Amino acid sequence: MKLRLTLLVILICYAAFTQKTFAAYMPASDTTDISAYKKYISDNEQKHLQEFMDFVAIPDISSLPAHKADMQRCAEWLKNKLQSIGMANARVMSTEGHPVVYADWNNADGKPTVLIYGHYDVQPVQEAMWTSPPFQPRQDNGRIYGRGASDDKGSVIAAIWAIEAMLQKEGKLPVNVKVIFEGEEEIGSPHLEKFMAANKDLLKTDYAYSADALQKSDTQPEMGMSVRGAATMEFTLTTANRDLHSGIYGGKLLNAAQAMSQIVESLHTPDGKVAVKGFYDKVKPMTAEEKAMAAKAPYDEQKELQENGAMLFTGEKGYTSLERVWWRPTLDVTGMWSGYTAEEGFLNIVPASAHCRIMCRLVQNQQSDEIIALIKKHIAANTPKGATITYKDLGGFSNDAVKYSTNTNAFKYAYAVLTQLYGREPMLMGSGGSNAAMAIINKQLGIPAYSFGFLQEDENFHSHNEFMRVSDLEKGQYAFCMLLTYIGNK
Amino acid sequence: MKLRLTLLVILICYAAFTQKTFAAYMPASDTTDISAYKKYISDNEQKHLQEFMDFVAIPDISSLPAHKADMQRCAEWLKNKLQSIGMANARVMSTEGHPVVYADWNNADGKPTVLIYGHYDVQPVQEAMWTSPPFQPRQDNGRIYGRGASDDKGSVIAAIWAIEAMLQKEGKLPVNVKVIFEGEEEIGSPHLEKFMAANKDLLKTDYAYSADALQKSDTQPEMGMSVRGAATMEFTLTTANRDLHSGIYGGKLLNAAQAMSQIVESLHTPDGKVAVKGFYDKVKPMTAEEKAMAAKAPYDEQKELQENGAMLFTGEKGYTSLERVWWRPTLDVTGMWSGYTAEEGFLNIVPASAHCRIMCRLVQNQQSDEIIALIKKHIAANTPKGATITYKDLGGFSNDAVKYSTNTNAFKYAYAVLTQLYGREPMLMGSGGSNAAMAIINKQLGIPAYSFGFLQEDENFHSHNEFMRVSDLEKGQYAFCMLLTYIGNK
Repeated sequence: MKLRLTLLVILICYAAFTQKTFAAYMPASDTTDISAYKKYISDNEQKHLQEFMDFVAIPDISSLPAHKADMQRCAEWLKNKLQSIGMANARVMSTEGHPVVYADWNNADGKPTVLIYGHYDVQPVQEAMWTSPPFQPRQDNGRIYGRGASDDKGSVIAAIWAIEAMLQKEGKLPVNVKVIFEGEEEIGSPHLEKFMAANKDLLKTDYAYSADALQKSDTQPEMGMSVRGAATMEFTLTTANRDLHSGIYGGKLLNAAQAMSQIVESLHTPDGKVAVKGFYDKVKPMTAEEKAMAAKAPYDEQKELQENGAMLFTGEKGYTSLERVWWRPTLDVTGMWSGYTAEEGFLNIVPASAHCRIMCRLVQNQQSDEIIALIKKHIAANTPKGATITYKDLGGFSNDAVKYSTNTNAFKYAYAVLTQLYGREPMLMGSGGSNAAMAIINKQLGIPAYSFGFLQEDENFHSHNEFMRVSDLEKGQYAFCMLLTYIGNK
Repeated sequence: MKLRLTLLVILICYAAFTQKTFAAYMPASDTTDISAYKKYISDNEQKHLQEFMDFVAIPDISSLPAHKADMQRCAEWLKNKLQSIGMANARVMSTEGHPVVYADWNNADGKPTVLIYGHYDVQPVQEAMWTSPPFQPRQDNGRIYGRGASDDKGSVIAAIWAIEAMLQKEGKLPVNVKVIFEGEEEIGSPHLEKFMAANKDLLKTDYAYSADALQKSDTQPEMGMSVRGAATMEFTLTTANRDLHSGIYGGKLLNAAQAMSQIVESLHTPDGKVAVKGFYDKVKPMTAEEKAMAAKAPYDEQKELQENGAMLFTGEKGYTSLERVWWRPTLDVTGMWSGYTAEEGFLNIVPASAHCRIMCRLVQNQQSDEIIALIKKHIAANTPKGATITYKDLGGFSNDAVKYSTNTNAFKYAYAVLTQLYGREPMLMGSGGSNAAMAIINKQLGIPAYSFGFLQEDENFHSHNEFMRVSDLEKGQYAFCMLLTYIGNK
């Protein structure tokens, strides 16, 4: 009880401390006056909504080869739009996969450059589950329904319209602006790294923001403060050249399913730690700030358990659920199969091969290549005699973690703008997910892209009946106008 | 070295001992003179081969519902054949599955009764892999090709022709004879137990033989001295109501694949024993006779390893490979799957369910029901907190082991006849396989059915281009004539 009290006091102190720190970035409202643009935004709302529906109607599903032409069409649509509002150098830039759309406006001499990242590609659809066709967008009760409306076309178009409003009203922007919209976010950005490496000068910027980001609610802003890295691998364990009859071999052939279970079992310690030697070597202890962030975040564990039909959340000892997911690296088997796996029937065999897929979520300083090498070493040391291991190349399913510092101007500006816009300070949220694009921007441009997008969690992105709130399209435009103005005034 | 020598000496002694014991059953050839029948057999060979081809042409695949009518047709064909040779009470007896064909001849007053078991159903075919259509039997170079020719129509028809020859030449049989041919052997004899329990009086016999059995080669007879029992089960481990995103749940949701691996890993000890408490309680230690049998059997481990692309055979410490397979019970995972198991791609999930199929091969005294209960108890004790286990009812995939004694008249008669016929004593072979029908006969009739069939291992049964040797059809007829004559003369 005493310990709990002490912890509570520590937490409150940290919360108060962080609050104080962030309050220092509160903007003087005069530096972000956007009243001049608000009228333009309002006057053009109906025209813009129609334009948005045209944008959403393009079925540019990046994971389906059949939609390759739609990808190109959508990229061209974006380029034309950027050109039409007065951006320079608007172009569709090809990669080995789907193209990247780029444009800039570099006439704000002596002012910093702001880069805005977003993506125009969308997820596949299970059309039967939609109330109305996913690529025939419709407006209903303040929402625009359609695949990609929320993720990520809404925030992308809001950024574009904000630039449009500023250029229309003033004939110029308060800062230099670069936009880059990729077409492969939904498939893990497999060609973005190469593209960025080859275009470093073109993309050079002082500040970067990602429009592929969430707000907590209509009234509560948030900023994402981390994404985990990812390392994936797949391997096969073999004990013979085919599954063998358990009447003839049961008892003498090394059972591949059982040998694989031994390996998988060896990957964790009884207290939930990853047992791979060296796995935690580069991991820094959770900071007080991180601990405070997880403690402050709204999180109803009981509700989440109930929704998922789970009995308990568990994992590495000494951490809360949110701490485990936000700040600790993990190793999960994502798939495993061996022997006779058909739904019905039974086969009397000793399996001679077993397959396993592993995904690690990594934290800052961990390199996916290094982690994979450590796991391979562990597997080799834990493979029973009589079994051989082979690895399958999975390609680009690895990326580093990104941790966003609160100690940068890019952070402070976004924090200030969101605070003014929502009348409330943003919640700072970690994330257990991975985002290849964020890792690539961080690495190739040397700075992170802070979250500055206007999706909300309930908008069914990646699911059916995806929608975007019309009010967030407006809020997004205000926010980008304020952000560029605020930075221009600094 | 000293220990090895001692063991060798012990083995040789046992071998000599067993040899001596069996030599005592050597028949006086005059008690099995079948020259009277040989002429009939020879005279009718061409007619009989045509008849055999008609039998094999019936595509009675018991596992495929589309062949239900063929099952009935084949049963009728057999009944008619049995009637035509003078057997009494020939009938097609229905079960809840495919019918049983029965006939008898009970006029040998004061003589014992011999029951002959076989099966008329056949395995499915992968027709594309056959050189000629599997149900258009053809004769080629002393072999009859066709599905079921070897397993088990050849030995069934040989027994029938032997009875035919004796009845044609003598108008009577030297003993009372009952035949029972089932139609569900290839699907695990799911209705045989109920049938036998309901027809105990009808099937009452002094000696029983199974025509569903092997000979080692053209010149080397063998007798199968054991089949293992079987106990099968399938269970699912669940940690949530669906697989969950590893970005949001990786680190806090109990991973079902990993939890299942823990359970599977716990099922064996590091020295290869089954770790389930009580699993070995009813198992008797391997006898000297069993040890000698395994030591004497022709077995080239290196060759078998090479054929199967395996590095080593392993398993329970303290036993050779053959001993493990013939005389020791085993527990094998036959199938296991969890999470994303498609051949291609990758899904970033924490699996919330995992599935496992287990097959135990059991030895004498072990009851499959008891073993299943012990394993369930073990699983319950080894299921991590946060997971639930559910079991799937697999139906009739369980049967007891059968061990054949060398100390019965039924054994001695068959041994003597095979010795005389082949001019060489049979090899006594254990088996790691299971055979529900043998377990059912043993239990319901109170005596085991000794192996007395004429398949050879290389005849591609269960595979494509199955064939039966014409010479074995002849040898089979001689053997059954000799067996009935020999028993009649005792």
